[in-house]
Amino acid sequence: MASSLSPPKVPMELHVGNRQKLLGSLRQHLLQSSVLLRGFVLLQGGQEQTRHDTDHLELFRQESYFAYLFGVREPGFYGAIDVESGESILFAPRLPDEYAVWLGEIKPLSYFKEHYMVSTACFTDEIASVLQERYKGSGKPLLFLLHGLNTDSNNFSTPADFEGIDNFNKDLTTLHPILTECRVIKSEMEIALVQYANDISSEAHVEVMRNAKVGMKEYQLESMFLHHTYMYGGCRHCSYTCICATGDNSAVLHYGHAAAPNDKTLEDGGMALLDMGAEYHFFMLNLYFSVQINGKFTIDQSLIYNAVLDAHNAVISAMKPGVFWVDMHILAERVILEALKKGQVVVGDVDEMVTARLGAVFMPHGLGHFLGLDTHDPGGYIKGLERRKEPGLKSLRTVRELQEGMVITVEPGCYFINALLCPAMNSPETSKFINQEVIKRFNGFGGVRIESDVLVTAAGCYNMTKCPREIKEIEAVMAGAPWPIKKTLSNHVNGNSSLGF
Amino acid sequence: MASSLSPPKVPMELHVGNRQKLLGSLRQHLLQSSVLLRGFVLLQGGQEQTRHDTDHLELFRQESYFAYLFGVREPGFYGAIDVESGESILFAPRLPDEYAVWLGEIKPLSYFKEHYMVSTACFTDEIASVLQERYKGSGKPLLFLLHGLNTDSNNFSTPADFEGIDNFNKDLTTLHPILTECRVIKSEMEIALVQYANDISSEAHVEVMRNAKVGMKEYQLESMFLHHTYMYGGCRHCSYTCICATGDNSAVLHYGHAAAPNDKTLEDGGMALLDMGAEYHFFMLNLYFSVQINGKFTIDQSLIYNAVLDAHNAVISAMKPGVFWVDMHILAERVILEALKKGQVVVGDVDEMVTARLGAVFMPHGLGHFLGLDTHDPGGYIKGLERRKEPGLKSLRTVRELQEGMVITVEPGCYFINALLCPAMNSPETSKFINQEVIKRFNGFGGVRIESDVLVTAAGCYNMTKCPREIKEIEAVMAGAPWPIKKTLSNHVNGNSSLGF
Repeated sequence: MASSLSPPKVPMELHVGNRQKLLGSLRQHLLQSSVLLRGFVLLQGGQEQTRHDTDHLELFRQESYFAYLFGVREPGFYGAIDVESGESILFAPRLPDEYAVWLGEIKPLSYFKEHYMVSTACFTDEIASVLQERYKGSGKPLLFLLHGLNTDSNNFSTPADFEGIDNFNKDLTTLHPILTECRVIKSEMEIALVQYANDISSEAHVEVMRNAKVGMKEYQLESMFLHHTYMYGGCRHCSYTCICATGDNSAVLHYGHAAAPNDKTLEDGGMALLDMGAEYHFFMLNLYFSVQINGKFTIDQSLIYNAVLDAHNAVISAMKPGVFWVDMHILAERVILEALKKGQVVVGDVDEMVTARLGAVFMPHGLGHFLGLDTHDPGGYIKGLERRKEPGLKSLRTVRELQEGMVITVEPGCYFINALLCPAMNSPETSKFINQEVIKRFNGFGGVRIESDVLVTAAGCYNMTKCPREIKEIEAVMAGAPWPIKKTLSNHVNGNSSLGF
Repeated sequence: MASSLSPPKVPMELHVGNRQKLLGSLRQHLLQSSVLLRGFVLLQGGQEQTRHDTDHLELFRQESYFAYLFGVREPGFYGAIDVESGESILFAPRLPDEYAVWLGEIKPLSYFKEHYMVSTACFTDEIASVLQERYKGSGKPLLFLLHGLNTDSNNFSTPADFEGIDNFNKDLTTLHPILTECRVIKSEMEIALVQYANDISSEAHVEVMRNAKVGMKEYQLESMFLHHTYMYGGCRHCSYTCICATGDNSAVLHYGHAAAPNDKTLEDGGMALLDMGAEYHFFMLNLYFSVQINGKFTIDQSLIYNAVLDAHNAVISAMKPGVFWVDMHILAERVILEALKKGQVVVGDVDEMVTARLGAVFMPHGLGHFLGLDTHDPGGYIKGLERRKEPGLKSLRTVRELQEGMVITVEPGCYFINALLCPAMNSPETSKFINQEVIKRFNGFGGVRIESDVLVTAAGCYNMTKCPREIKEIEAVMAGAPWPIKKTLSNHVNGNSSLGF
């Protein structure tokens, strides 16, 4: 099969809208603080990077905050927004003549002005003079620069720098939280791109599922996924390094990196856990799902798979504005523990298990995270929100109350990780819950994770991910049935969407 | 088709051999300088990089000098060689307990010792103490650190750094030229890997050639290439960002980067210039060739294509130890100019054209470069060799005399680049050679480049690249003929190889 999809046109109005949204929020903040509406938002785009001392250029991908506001795919740019007039200015690098020979046509400034729909385009060596000339206030012009903590990496963003910046006043605190909050609530055009990335990635996952064979290497599944999303979907980048974990590797949450490079052979009867997502025009998608390699689930595999699927579905059924993400995490834990109890893997009272944090032994990661221009989109911890200390909960990338327009992943999992099970079986607080006889059967089982990207709507939420999920759907599709299966499938729509879904 | 190839086992003896070779060269140098054989070669491997302020990890690829000596695929390592005893020591990062949950099994030091075939493995926080303990001389132990210029990027390599380095003496000048020279002459095991990367890439190019269709996007050719080399060849990385240039884009030498991302539609009658290479266990391959999209060359396309092919073949016929690379570059220019003269694109005396540097108008880049762990492998300018100043020649990445065991690309090209043709037609020194009437026909033609990877042997050279090259071969393969075509094709073997080819 080729694909029923084709890459959509990218509307630059998306970024015009983002700039207007930022301008609205920033002006409101300044008015509330009784500060004059003067100065410039100034961001520096990403630069191309070479590998170590060589001239090997890594394929450039724009810095995400800059991509959000300006949508520029080329390296070496700056962008400004005049807070008073609302005008936007792109600064392009002045390219040497030999660029035309080696790297292509040197586009005129008018090209960037029109293509990226900004008010003006100038060269990067004109930043100081252009901004000085436009400034109507007295004293040094004020720059709102981007500086703040990324709560996933614990790194700080680097504020823009240019020759002549000393002749400006710098505000390093205002912009970051306001711009980050703009990114948290998605616009309709942004949602459409995330939906496209979802659709092409879902289709690719179905392709991989159908073509996975005993004896293949894990990386061959990765190759099929990447090929489908690029060949038919126009996605040159992927959201993150592909995780193609089979057998006991599926208990390694971030498998697939250079030190564990998807190089195991697929074994008969084993399960594959595939966490692979495409990126389209900077917008990501996150998609994880678990399948059975030979197409038939065993009883134990069904037990764990359905435990996770029930947790996934229960969370999506409960999600709506006003709900707290920590409660959704605990809901997922509870559903999984209930299922493990039915399967006699654990014994005792589920409330007590939750209190003893037994859920974090089987699901050590957080339930999900914001998604957008980054796989782990920022904004999970706004001012005043503290990270929890308890196992499992401390791994949550957000503890926020859900709001309409958020896109968040729902990705419960259940794993048998010796590094966590052994201490839990030796601790008096948790050992009493674990059925030592039954759990032996799950040694080497690995784990299951099921992930969807979910949009919070006015009255509930909408699952943007359209993959085979029920065991009977997966078995049918792997046996050759078309997808989507003809009869109407419920798409986990919970409540009504105000966004037209 | 799947593939007739499968990923070969990577022999770690290759890196053992590289360390022995370095040790031999270094000891000889020290003996000649009447310096005691004491101290340690110390290299720092690459670290994982995150994207800007986020926790997005770029897929790690080892620094090439470190890969050469130790073959380590994991990030965060150091490696040392004891100059006196010849023993090698790997230093692995001490991983935190949660690594086992998120990133996989924490391997014991014994794993690294055995897998990478070193004498000892320790932790990176033990570098200072381990080296101090081993040192038998008086005073501070001496470290030979890697510091030197990469003549392609003009960047310097960063010498290793670690806590406690102040208690060592540092030698920053000895190691770089010696280790670089080791990399210039390839071992048999290295040649076998470059040959494999060549074979899988050649096969992938044939696949792409067969499946290219009018109406496709350029990036779909890239996707097919990447998929073939990864799916069937196990090549997760490619040598450099793929160049898939059609029509006038083929006159842009390094097309395909983020600002020119292979996004044009393939047009009927146009040509495609594909520069794509795979990497296998750090070893690169460079492969460029030009094809006609609808499978039939026009007269003008044949003229330019055959001019470049004749230059390619003439150089390979002339290559052998003792030949200077500058002479090969000028030979290629001369063959191309002769052909252009026959086609009445240029007029006059070819010797005079060469002197006037007209060749650089049509081929502004150098004829080729060393190839190995980097696409532009280092060592092109050893001490005493100066870069030429003339157009074309100044772009040469090496001016060296060929030696047995060098692997170098032969990649002549002929382009119609307005940014070069316009000044040439306006300059009194070159305008007289250009037939202004005829050259109009080539406006928008783009360009042709043909590239092979060639091993210098004792008596001549060996072309490691096995692609359809003659127009009739390309037309036949694109029309569905098998490759290699059944009748025996001459493989541009020139002289006898002492390396068994």
